[in-house]
Amino acid sequence: MDELTVFLIASIGISVVAFLFAAWLYGWVKRQPCENERINEVGGYIKKGAEVFLNREYKVLAKFAAVAAVIILVLLPSPIWKGDFVPNIKMTVSYLCGTVFSAIAGKIGISVSTIANGRTAVAATKGIRPSFLCGFRGGAVMGMAVVGASLLGVSLVFWVTGSGTALLGFSFGASSLALFAKAGGGIFTKTADIAADLTGKVELGIPEDDPRNPAVVADNVGDNVGDVAGMGADLFDSNVASMAAALVMGSALDNTGAVGGNCVPTVFCYAAIGLLSSIIGVAAARMGKNDNPTTALNSSTYVTTGIFAAMTALATFLLGFEWRIWGASTIGLVVGTVIGIASDYFTDDRKKPVKMTAKASESGPAFTILSGVSYAFLSTLPSMVGIGVSALAAYNLCAPLGGELYGVEYALFGIAMAAVGMLSIVGMIISNDAYGPIVDNARGLAEMGNLGEDIIEITDKLDSAGNTVKAVTKGFAIGAAGLTVIALLGAFLSEVRGAAIELGKNAADFAGLDIMNPNVFFGLLAGAAIPAVFSAMLMLGVNRNAMRMVDEIHRQFCEIAGLKEGKEGVTPEYDKCIDIATSGALKELIPAGLVSIVVTIAVGFIGGVNAIGGFLTGNIVSGLLLALFLSNSGGLWDNSKKYVESGEHGGKGSDAHKAAVIGDTVGDPFKDTAGPSINTQITVVSLVSSLLSTLFLSFSIF
Amino acid sequence: MDELTVFLIASIGISVVAFLFAAWLYGWVKRQPCENERINEVGGYIKKGAEVFLNREYKVLAKFAAVAAVIILVLLPSPIWKGDFVPNIKMTVSYLCGTVFSAIAGKIGISVSTIANGRTAVAATKGIRPSFLCGFRGGAVMGMAVVGASLLGVSLVFWVTGSGTALLGFSFGASSLALFAKAGGGIFTKTADIAADLTGKVELGIPEDDPRNPAVVADNVGDNVGDVAGMGADLFDSNVASMAAALVMGSALDNTGAVGGNCVPTVFCYAAIGLLSSIIGVAAARMGKNDNPTTALNSSTYVTTGIFAAMTALATFLLGFEWRIWGASTIGLVVGTVIGIASDYFTDDRKKPVKMTAKASESGPAFTILSGVSYAFLSTLPSMVGIGVSALAAYNLCAPLGGELYGVEYALFGIAMAAVGMLSIVGMIISNDAYGPIVDNARGLAEMGNLGEDIIEITDKLDSAGNTVKAVTKGFAIGAAGLTVIALLGAFLSEVRGAAIELGKNAADFAGLDIMNPNVFFGLLAGAAIPAVFSAMLMLGVNRNAMRMVDEIHRQFCEIAGLKEGKEGVTPEYDKCIDIATSGALKELIPAGLVSIVVTIAVGFIGGVNAIGGFLTGNIVSGLLLALFLSNSGGLWDNSKKYVESGEHGGKGSDAHKAAVIGDTVGDPFKDTAGPSINTQITVVSLVSSLLSTLFLSFSIF
Repeated sequence: MDELTVFLIASIGISVVAFLFAAWLYGWVKRQPCENERINEVGGYIKKGAEVFLNREYKVLAKFAAVAAVIILVLLPSPIWKGDFVPNIKMTVSYLCGTVFSAIAGKIGISVSTIANGRTAVAATKGIRPSFLCGFRGGAVMGMAVVGASLLGVSLVFWVTGSGTALLGFSFGASSLALFAKAGGGIFTKTADIAADLTGKVELGIPEDDPRNPAVVADNVGDNVGDVAGMGADLFDSNVASMAAALVMGSALDNTGAVGGNCVPTVFCYAAIGLLSSIIGVAAARMGKNDNPTTALNSSTYVTTGIFAAMTALATFLLGFEWRIWGASTIGLVVGTVIGIASDYFTDDRKKPVKMTAKASESGPAFTILSGVSYAFLSTLPSMVGIGVSALAAYNLCAPLGGELYGVEYALFGIAMAAVGMLSIVGMIISNDAYGPIVDNARGLAEMGNLGEDIIEITDKLDSAGNTVKAVTKGFAIGAAGLTVIALLGAFLSEVRGAAIELGKNAADFAGLDIMNPNVFFGLLAGAAIPAVFSAMLMLGVNRNAMRMVDEIHRQFCEIAGLKEGKEGVTPEYDKCIDIATSGALKELIPAGLVSIVVTIAVGFIGGVNAIGGFLTGNIVSGLLLALFLSNSGGLWDNSKKYVESGEHGGKGSDAHKAAVIGDTVGDPFKDTAGPSINTQITVVSLVSSLLSTLFLSFSIF
Repeated sequence: MDELTVFLIASIGISVVAFLFAAWLYGWVKRQPCENERINEVGGYIKKGAEVFLNREYKVLAKFAAVAAVIILVLLPSPIWKGDFVPNIKMTVSYLCGTVFSAIAGKIGISVSTIANGRTAVAATKGIRPSFLCGFRGGAVMGMAVVGASLLGVSLVFWVTGSGTALLGFSFGASSLALFAKAGGGIFTKTADIAADLTGKVELGIPEDDPRNPAVVADNVGDNVGDVAGMGADLFDSNVASMAAALVMGSALDNTGAVGGNCVPTVFCYAAIGLLSSIIGVAAARMGKNDNPTTALNSSTYVTTGIFAAMTALATFLLGFEWRIWGASTIGLVVGTVIGIASDYFTDDRKKPVKMTAKASESGPAFTILSGVSYAFLSTLPSMVGIGVSALAAYNLCAPLGGELYGVEYALFGIAMAAVGMLSIVGMIISNDAYGPIVDNARGLAEMGNLGEDIIEITDKLDSAGNTVKAVTKGFAIGAAGLTVIALLGAFLSEVRGAAIELGKNAADFAGLDIMNPNVFFGLLAGAAIPAVFSAMLMLGVNRNAMRMVDEIHRQFCEIAGLKEGKEGVTPEYDKCIDIATSGALKELIPAGLVSIVVTIAVGFIGGVNAIGGFLTGNIVSGLLLALFLSNSGGLWDNSKKYVESGEHGGKGSDAHKAAVIGDTVGDPFKDTAGPSINTQITVVSLVSSLLSTLFLSFSIF
């Protein structure tokens, strides 16, 4: 048995351990008591709503995947009429596996988060620590399922096909699911959130999560489908893409017999250690006696980070891997942390940006917006520079491994390893992130189940910790996506060179992407506009859909007697609102997704691979910029509102509060719909380009 | 006398004609009657305020320029200790000329706009047509002065020094002035505008331009210093930069004796024809009997465009210039028009984006913002693709001129000529643009001079036309800046290659900018963040400064008895507000300007010319994206507010109106401070990079 097989088996083994651990956590959560009748009733609505959405989403996705699978079967990696159809079948099956693995992980996540929410609320009656543990372990099920499924899938596909290219198919499958889950879920959640706020808080002046509001269940469903299933699919996608990029380049390098060697085993070894570290981190997570959930979440992240760095160092030492590659992955980890801290600075209510924005709200909502936009613009600098520096450092660190001949290839592999390093602790990140919507739901259920002010306060504290931690994890996610797509750009060019040789063209013509080539520059400008267009289409979709739901809520208030007044026994038709959010989300996301894919294909057939290279670069650069801007401004406004609500600048009900609420409403689709979907859009575009590179080489106008 | 000398003399001659025409227009405006005492009084305040600002701005600038001149003298184009100091003296003098020529043009523009405003108001008593003519001719003085000064300066510098590199110095001088005038003026104007609105419209409920408001004169001063002097300096800068880029590349090509030849004479010939066309267009401009000022402004633009295309074709035919170069300049002109039309679609109140944003305002200000942001994101696509396509087309059109050896050089020269073509009608564009603040002021003066509702309505119509036309001219300005900086990127690389040869390095190493080079990629990411940071700093500066002015206004309302109530004979201390706007604007802009220059230098010394090349590219790409986003969103919100005010969705005073006003307030610093300043920031960064390329080549860390 060779070294690679050992690591493949180890990876599969640890994936299975992750699944078993997830099953144990699931059982633990399920065993927690939940006797409150009202909570069970509403919790049941939420569970059913989330399942309805997921099933309908998966049905639409199945159609999309079927069409894509046929196209792949016929055309990729090379047209089937050229004779050899085995690689096409491998690619198609890999693609379908990518969608199915990610879908299963999403399904598991949703099914646990929708039972953990009520139990977390009930556990709060025994104190904050058991409640925290219930919320965290619910989220950890998702974390384990996602990372287990992605490592298992990548290992199996690589083992069975032995091909890096087939992995790109798997990755593309994960991306298409992520596009639907993240963008669709993002539209769903903000549709419901906005409609609930507009009709409830603004028109009627009733509190958030008031059970009279027909949109309130849809709002809670949204947290699950957007933040649990959507975010999970997004990170599944990033994680797979970073491994795929590293493996495509690594397997090419291992075949050259250059100094570095061992690239593929290193990738699997580090990925397995990353998952193991996350398992240990999750198992060890507890809230300390000091009762601060934010510290508990962050310290478990840092523990995981430390374990990963130490264990990979040990493995590198024992197994004789290259220290430079270890260095690259550690750079990724460190820069990820730095980006997280920078994002935290701009969204933390103890720091200047949030405080100044809250103060600006005293002068009216226009100043809330202007201040938030300005600080969010500033916030892009550290992350952009951080991603650039980590790419530069990883490149220069690993270039010497390749010697004269393969320096560039090793250098790009180094960048991919920095992304793998940054995403090594993704199991922990997802656990923390999925914790957020569970405790958010718990807060709503505590309110609807009449658990009393004290309990609501506990869930409020847990919820607020979720928001703060989100900033850090989002920083990681955006940074990793940035590095991954840089690596994918390298993978794209290496695909192009391979295809060029097959087509009898000169591979050296595609050694790089010269900005002064007008095709590249044209692609650069067009590509830069796409993330803006994509997020605009999603946000306009949210607006349109929210207006539909507002109409439905008005209808119910009008037609259901006693609902507005809160008469005993009168309940709104929650499912109507869930229906609108579901069908609207799917209707609105398809054009946005299609536009990105179609424009990519159009640019490729117009300007060929050079234009596509520029297009990808423009897409990455402006995508990172806008994703950081949208995520950070949203977080900043959310926390400014909370800061004012804590009693500053007049507190709740003051003019500053009204202005801050407007800022938060603007920020919601920024941070929960548009911002996080950009990652997925970039990955999809990168993969479409890589997969179609042969076609673009063969047929293009210029 | 050789051909070039003929064209130089012709250019200088036509510049002088432009100045004489400007003097005639100035005299004409001055001869218009203005007997209203109150208008003369307030007009005097405005005039004095604008002059105070300009003088203080120029003083600060003089210090900055003195420091820059010393640095240039010592270091550029090559360190003085290397022996040859004549080029350094040429460069320094050219730099100083660039600032002085632009400053003189600005001074002329301000001095006419501040007398034309009152006369336009008084002329409105005789009807809309004489009033229009007075406003337009006032603006045309600025147009003629700017283009005359820029063509004169470029011709003289080129004649005397015979060097393209010295022209970069002239261009850098123009840029440093533009940075101060545009960014400083932008901060000034929005400081006053926001403070006036917050205290007047919002707090007291008194109308715009009410003379009781202490900020009202500063607001009108702001229109002049921001939109007349600032915008003029910006377009002076773009115009000079496009010519400089074309001449640097053209003179290198003319020395090669390749097919194309005649590059430099072509540039001067086309530039002279452009100015001549603008003179004819301005002289012919009248408002037709149908009484629509928008049509009058737009049709004079189209007339100028047609004259330019026809006359350059004739010149090309008669003088035997290359048709391909004519084609490139015509592509620029056509694409400029297309971009203008696209910008118009997103900001015109008869089109969907403005209407939908007005409708969204019914649901509250958050939806005004979300809708505006979304449409403005969408609006970036046509312009980005348009700029990319015109660069691609001009490149491919002109590449054959260079044959095997100089194809790339001619192709880049073609891009520069597309920019020259797009800016050929800049005289007309500035005339139209400077018309805006004059009629805006006239509206204010008509209100303060109690000229009655009918007259105010006439000036309102003229003002609204100014806003609509602005969208088109801004499209031209951004598009031209985009093409110019692409050409400057070419000029930068050609400087680098020249310097590399002098330093004994291999020029072929700097033939292009490979995105896969990690230094380039690092620069790309860092460069993309700079326009965001720059605009954020300006907007935060506006916020801070407006708060200072609001405090001052509150003090006056408190301390000056009878002011709030509008007691006869009580006037506010207008000059205090002007003082605050002036000193604050200068204080706030310096850090933003320095940050862009310092970061450029830092990136250059860290990553060398490759990092700087990537930095410039990132800067251009994200700068164009953000400039389009900020300008178009601002225009869209402004016109949405006007649309609601025209009686739609409840009209003035409705909730939709309040929401639309908030959108407009957000949009003001977007479109008048941050958006238009980005152009200048990009040009400054490009020129700093070109000027310092030798230094970056000699000393850099990586």
